[in-house]
Amino acid sequence: MTKILAEILTIGDEILFGQITDTNSQWMSQELDQLGIRVVRKTTVGDNEEDILSAFAEAEAKADLVLITGGLGPTNDDLTMPMLARYFDSGIVKNQAVEDHVRNFFESRGREFTEMNKRQALVPEVATVLHNELGTAPGTWYEREGKVFVSMPGVPHEMKHLMKEHVLPRVREFFHTPVIYHKLIKTVGIGESFLADKIKDWEENLPGHIKLAYLPSIGHVKLRLTATGDNREKLAAEVSELIDQALPIMGKYIYGYDGTTLEQAIGEMLLERKQTIALAESCTGGYVQHKLTTIAGSSAYFQGGVVPYHNDFKMDLIGVKEATLAAHGAVSEETVKEMAEGVRRKFKADIGAATSGIAGPGGGSEDKPVGTVWIAYADGEQTIAKKLQLTQNRKLNIELSQIAVLNLVRKSLKG
Amino acid sequence: MTKILAEILTIGDEILFGQITDTNSQWMSQELDQLGIRVVRKTTVGDNEEDILSAFAEAEAKADLVLITGGLGPTNDDLTMPMLARYFDSGIVKNQAVEDHVRNFFESRGREFTEMNKRQALVPEVATVLHNELGTAPGTWYEREGKVFVSMPGVPHEMKHLMKEHVLPRVREFFHTPVIYHKLIKTVGIGESFLADKIKDWEENLPGHIKLAYLPSIGHVKLRLTATGDNREKLAAEVSELIDQALPIMGKYIYGYDGTTLEQAIGEMLLERKQTIALAESCTGGYVQHKLTTIAGSSAYFQGGVVPYHNDFKMDLIGVKEATLAAHGAVSEETVKEMAEGVRRKFKADIGAATSGIAGPGGGSEDKPVGTVWIAYADGEQTIAKKLQLTQNRKLNIELSQIAVLNLVRKSLKG
Repeated sequence: MTKILAEILTIGDEILFGQITDTNSQWMSQELDQLGIRVVRKTTVGDNEEDILSAFAEAEAKADLVLITGGLGPTNDDLTMPMLARYFDSGIVKNQAVEDHVRNFFESRGREFTEMNKRQALVPEVATVLHNELGTAPGTWYEREGKVFVSMPGVPHEMKHLMKEHVLPRVREFFHTPVIYHKLIKTVGIGESFLADKIKDWEENLPGHIKLAYLPSIGHVKLRLTATGDNREKLAAEVSELIDQALPIMGKYIYGYDGTTLEQAIGEMLLERKQTIALAESCTGGYVQHKLTTIAGSSAYFQGGVVPYHNDFKMDLIGVKEATLAAHGAVSEETVKEMAEGVRRKFKADIGAATSGIAGPGGGSEDKPVGTVWIAYADGEQTIAKKLQLTQNRKLNIELSQIAVLNLVRKSLKG
Repeated sequence: MTKILAEILTIGDEILFGQITDTNSQWMSQELDQLGIRVVRKTTVGDNEEDILSAFAEAEAKADLVLITGGLGPTNDDLTMPMLARYFDSGIVKNQAVEDHVRNFFESRGREFTEMNKRQALVPEVATVLHNELGTAPGTWYEREGKVFVSMPGVPHEMKHLMKEHVLPRVREFFHTPVIYHKLIKTVGIGESFLADKIKDWEENLPGHIKLAYLPSIGHVKLRLTATGDNREKLAAEVSELIDQALPIMGKYIYGYDGTTLEQAIGEMLLERKQTIALAESCTGGYVQHKLTTIAGSSAYFQGGVVPYHNDFKMDLIGVKEATLAAHGAVSEETVKEMAEGVRRKFKADIGAATSGIAGPGGGSEDKPVGTVWIAYADGEQTIAKKLQLTQNRKLNIELSQIAVLNLVRKSLKG
């Protein structure tokens, strides 16, 4: 099969001048990549006729599919629609369905439907209109000699909605792209190269139509399996079986699949076990509790916690012993264990967890340099502590400690 | 003066395929915009000879200045340097200064200096080499018939360093751009349109060579003053005087200038006053404490805090009265005031602050819908509470509450 080539064309002065961040084109690239379509160029031009028309011509010369965003407002600055009409030698007509939708869009929000708004319904006669439920500027689709142009609004959630609902299904059909099935495997607690080494044999034995990609980010490694074929259910079953085969070697690092976050995974484990948790955070300063409470419904399992930044409060609030602090210091196995046990008791929780470390840049010593962090887990039966030796960077140390303590909780819950 | 036109050209498959986010081009756009140079196009092409050469030619036809990033590694995939040599009809030579720097770069890090690494020192003979202290790929500068090409590595911190140290000063000199001076005024607690209304007269009376831009973000509005002239000191003094004139009308919303964050500004106020702070967070779940503790040195003024997610702990830990909770509920003026006073006492701090609210999506009632949040400040002499009516979005409510309570502390400290 010949590779389908694509260009992503963004229209708008606000991107050229750096006033807004372009997150659209990366998202579109990823979606096209997942269909097996190769993006060969991305271009951004401003709101002027000549640049837009020459960008159309250059894109058509290089690509089979041209995805255009932006320049669709109702004002005179917005030139995408008239330039598309000119480029495709087409008249402009009023589309009644779009006008009705735009009228309803404004009136249902108690806003006036003006003559200016009416212009959103003017589309090139040759275009197929793609309904934009989430906004007022429609998508439009153009075909000529085996090539496709698509115009969409630049507002990210409108563009994504149009892509998923209309553009990608039409692209698949038009270009007869194969069915592609993806699964993200989310791991924590192991570096990319160590993971790659562990699953080497499994990876080498993947069938030719299933590809593996490593997507590392801070503290996490995601694995993406991409299966290509002609039947989605069959691909999903194959991928599921392959993951089952890999579980004995990497199952303990997996906290979830696809969109699941680590804090969500822990929330679900606690809900399922009907258990509660409390946190005592020193070096992470409340960040772990923040992460847990971003999840809707977390009050069902999160009891609360403390940030005893100074030693007095480690004793006073959660009963860390003065003798322990005196003998071992705040950043020590003994102290962090007493913190986890103490916060568990204080908050009447099933599980207590704690962090204590030197985030930096100050506070390090030869014995305990910046980046030394202790984390602990306590559940009444056992208390587990772990030492981390992290970086010189304060924010990175806080981020890595937060992930490590949540991962310690996850592993301990799994048993 | 004729406007200088620029193109930003990014080279690399990893951007085309959406594997990495391009943050470089927005930053470069902003920097050029601040010099009065107009970006007319941004293009991204992959690692192949034909696309790179045609992108060079198109850019040269449209722009006076072409800024190129990426494609500078030592492997065969990296084509920017050989393509620049071909485009400028130049031989390739070894640059001894670059080779010495790269050797030292590796050896000082205990890594081997290989034949592959040596290739980083091969540059087109016609290029002026720009020293890249932070990495191994040098910047290069090309002039031809009044136009300039610049090639830089794609690693963001290396690119920014080269831009600031070498490229922008040279661009200013080559194109005789005027001196531009910027000042960011950072405000909180007032929406963009209200602020614009308040400073309308001041804004209208700004001299022609000083422009104002509104840069809103969640919970904050930044104002950017851009002054154009020929003497930096003079411009700085003018801007400073204009800000002084505006202080009576907007001073109370300003928490800082340029890179200062709200949590930094509060930290500096507390340090200066030799005061300490403690937090009791319910709906914000530790986020305010996390923000305060991201600042290096925060242990000098941050005593610690609690996240009493359940009412029992509001009573048990910081002495909120059972009767108060029973009569008014957890999300109320009375409770949040007792939380601020209680945490202040418990942590022996000069200042206590608190949040209690319904972040959503569950937990709302007719009386107290999702988005109802109370925040409070207590300093022993006075206790101030404020009600917020926020959104339906949990994460946004947590973000806005965090900003609001820090702003309440800031305003109260200012008195």
